[in-house]
Amino acid sequence: MMRHLLSAADLDAASALQILDSAEQMHAVQNRLVKKLPALRGRTVVNLFFEDSTRTRSSFEIAGKWLSADVINISAKGSSVSKGESLRDTVLTVAAMGVDALVVRHPASGAVHRITDWVDCPVINAGDGTHEHPTQALLDAFSLRRRLGELSARHIVIVGDLTHSRVARSNALLLQTLGAQVTLVAPPTLMPAGVDGWGCTTSWDFDAVLSGKIAGDVDAVMMLRVQRERMSSGYFPTEREYSIGYGLSPQRLSMLPEHAPVLHPGPMNRGLEISSAAADGDRSVILDQVKAGVAIRMAVLYYLLAGSDQPAPVLEEGPTA
Amino acid sequence: MMRHLLSAADLDAASALQILDSAEQMHAVQNRLVKKLPALRGRTVVNLFFEDSTRTRSSFEIAGKWLSADVINISAKGSSVSKGESLRDTVLTVAAMGVDALVVRHPASGAVHRITDWVDCPVINAGDGTHEHPTQALLDAFSLRRRLGELSARHIVIVGDLTHSRVARSNALLLQTLGAQVTLVAPPTLMPAGVDGWGCTTSWDFDAVLSGKIAGDVDAVMMLRVQRERMSSGYFPTEREYSIGYGLSPQRLSMLPEHAPVLHPGPMNRGLEISSAAADGDRSVILDQVKAGVAIRMAVLYYLLAGSDQPAPVLEEGPTA
Amino acid sequence: MMRHLLSAADLDAASALQILDSAEQMHAVQNRLVKKLPALRGRTVVNLFFEDSTRTRSSFEIAGKWLSADVINISAKGSSVSKGESLRDTVLTVAAMGVDALVVRHPASGAVHRITDWVDCPVINAGDGTHEHPTQALLDAFSLRRRLGELSARHIVIVGDLTHSRVARSNALLLQTLGAQVTLVAPPTLMPAGVDGWGCTTSWDFDAVLSGKIAGDVDAVMMLRVQRERMSSGYFPTEREYSIGYGLSPQRLSMLPEHAPVLHPGPMNRGLEISSAAADGDRSVILDQVKAGVAIRMAVLYYLLAGSDQPAPVLEEGPTA
Repeated sequence: MMRHLLSAADLDAASALQILDSAEQMHAVQNRLVKKLPALRGRTVVNLFFEDSTRTRSSFEIAGKWLSADVINISAKGSSVSKGESLRDTVLTVAAMGVDALVVRHPASGAVHRITDWVDCPVINAGDGTHEHPTQALLDAFSLRRRLGELSARHIVIVGDLTHSRVARSNALLLQTLGAQVTLVAPPTLMPAGVDGWGCTTSWDFDAVLSGKIAGDVDAVMMLRVQRERMSSGYFPTEREYSIGYGLSPQRLSMLPEHAPVLHPGPMNRGLEISSAAADGDRSVILDQVKAGVAIRMAVLYYLLAGSDQPAPVLEEGPTA
Repeated sequence: MMRHLLSAADLDAASALQILDSAEQMHAVQNRLVKKLPALRGRTVVNLFFEDSTRTRSSFEIAGKWLSADVINISAKGSSVSKGESLRDTVLTVAAMGVDALVVRHPASGAVHRITDWVDCPVINAGDGTHEHPTQALLDAFSLRRRLGELSARHIVIVGDLTHSRVARSNALLLQTLGAQVTLVAPPTLMPAGVDGWGCTTSWDFDAVLSGKIAGDVDAVMMLRVQRERMSSGYFPTEREYSIGYGLSPQRLSMLPEHAPVLHPGPMNRGLEISSAAADGDRSVILDQVKAGVAIRMAVLYYLLAGSDQPAPVLEEGPTA
Repeated sequence: MMRHLLSAADLDAASALQILDSAEQMHAVQNRLVKKLPALRGRTVVNLFFEDSTRTRSSFEIAGKWLSADVINISAKGSSVSKGESLRDTVLTVAAMGVDALVVRHPASGAVHRITDWVDCPVINAGDGTHEHPTQALLDAFSLRRRLGELSARHIVIVGDLTHSRVARSNALLLQTLGAQVTLVAPPTLMPAGVDGWGCTTSWDFDAVLSGKIAGDVDAVMMLRVQRERMSSGYFPTEREYSIGYGLSPQRLSMLPEHAPVLHPGPMNRGLEISSAAADGDRSVILDQVKAGVAIRMAVLYYLLAGSDQPAPVLEEGPTA
């Protein structure tokens, strides 16, 4: 049984599907007037964030509270926690207070994995450096599955700054675990060094991929956020050039098959990697992804804290909102 | 039925009185040992603050928690949420998590109104730029009513930086809706441009107003905070001169009728717009206003989330603190 | 009956023992799967921190939540609360919202005591300047007692920056109240001015104290954090020299009797005041101190809010984690 969720690679197909199915039940709770399950009453979840992320923190906070857990937010950025303390001592201190699960974001790739050597409680990776963001991959899979049904043999295209994207890495892993085919599209400067080992088709030509010439018909396209601060570091010539080559313009949107959804992990740079036509159109599942995020995080917290051998929580009856 | 609370103008006399009456019941809960009503259990209230305001945020947080709601604080100031994201996308993202009410503060006048075009849930304006702060007006009316009884035909004087004060604007609207007469006192540089349309008497002469010569006997005086950063912008010559002309000094306090309370929305600049004699004297209701703030916010959350056609929540019996 | 907890001097032996005994019960709750007591349901505890302290704030937040209180965090550092407001007005405003207990940290010695002149609710000092930190002393006593049994006639050595340490001051008071003998060790520049009145043996020679030559055999050693910013102020020549004279090195650790625990309030400067051999060895109770902190804060909140004449809360039966 899985003890932590550090990487999308921790999930085999069975455990991923168990979490996705459990999240369907949690998702139903989100539509209730009374969004509250007693499942984790008396458990304490700490959001330990060494890097700002209001949206991911809020999503985990809501997920924990809807499961009736006590949720404590600790921003460990800057000197407020650490005062020169080692990461290990900071984490041991937080865990010693009597924490049942740690949700950790850290700017250094691998830091969250390190933490599991030190603590007894389940640790959830809420994003570590450019490495992994497994709950994002789960919520993306959840959103894709609601549109496309089972993902086996589906063809998902991920486009953008692959080198620095933990979202891309986690998605490439999980989608393949679930039987999907993944194509990665990026300019040469943003194609990761070891991408040959990812098991995906790669291309620099977004239009050719969209047309189906490179790797067959496309079932979904996932646009990645451009981190504008990388513009000045020589990864892109200009925003305009990036947008022309790799933005999801209205023209490219029209090349997508009818059934294919558009995903983006947010926050979006409208007009850069994604046009408003794509972001706001019928095919966009971008807000569904946000909603799915809470359901997935509820399911993951439940899975790790209540035990994967537990049945899903008995859902209280209640009126729908 | 009112769906949002954006402006004091959203409230007709009937709905304002319904909220004030409901707040009386909430106020009684504040005196209990056990300050907790089950009314909003399983509902999620997000404090989405694009501008710092610890006191207003705390007041809404306490109000939500006493009604058993889950309360999530999101500080959207600086880059932590937005990272260049549009206001619309930020708000849509927060709402998509499954939020039942948004309490929003924003530095731009009108921004909170804009938000209601985008989301389905009730939105409460917790202060937008120099525009409105309707729960402040409600808590002021609540505090006035407890001292003066019904406000019809009462004469309330509001003094200070009217141009930049959302408190003044919301109060002028609500007090007149409740039948009161309002006189606005400010130096010429701080009298708002369109003040003729407010329906109030205006004057630059605080002493003449206090004496009753301008608009009749005074039933209450509400002092506004001076934003010191405006001193350097040419609105006032000096703090001393402002204080002499528009500060509520002990001498001016003695001109007030016995029954007339002194209000201030806080935080106070003692010695500038208000003397300690006025702030701490028997006529001051300044701390009552703070206490009323929680009761009013409970009543507003209850009104918008449980529905105005619902009876007030059944109050648990409980010992008084 | 004690109304506030401002200083370790507020506690006589009977009330200190009552809190320590109550904390034993709370400590047992920490080992439960369901860490939740209904004791303070419907009570509101505000953490009002005028200085950052994530670890102390989190400990009080967890303690309050496990007792079912509503906990509100207010960071009053910088301008977010105060905007030039006086401490008195800030505190009165927060208290007026309907708060049942204030947990206050403030950078100025004595500020927390001042607050009790203004408010009706219990106030807990969570650290004021270089003055006191009484819950730290209680958790240290709790950790010592679990290792050593009753503390009467035990000999505790406190080492380090005594001049600036509220931890040392509160511990020296409480340990002596509990009948222990205390020896204070510091370089001459860091020995407090009025230390003669503390009732403790003092020495500049850590090795002589450890050997038992100065004040008899040692039962525990408590290392204090070196505030590195004091290095440049002339209190120490260099870090290396401080470490040689006053660090708990492996050699010094081996001089300690078998039964004697090592304490540190955290965060630690490993290699400066404490070696990793001492911090991580069998004798270290440093993480036990962190865990005890939550139990002590639960006991203190319960004591002040439910009343010292109340029996300890009925503990729900529940499985152990």
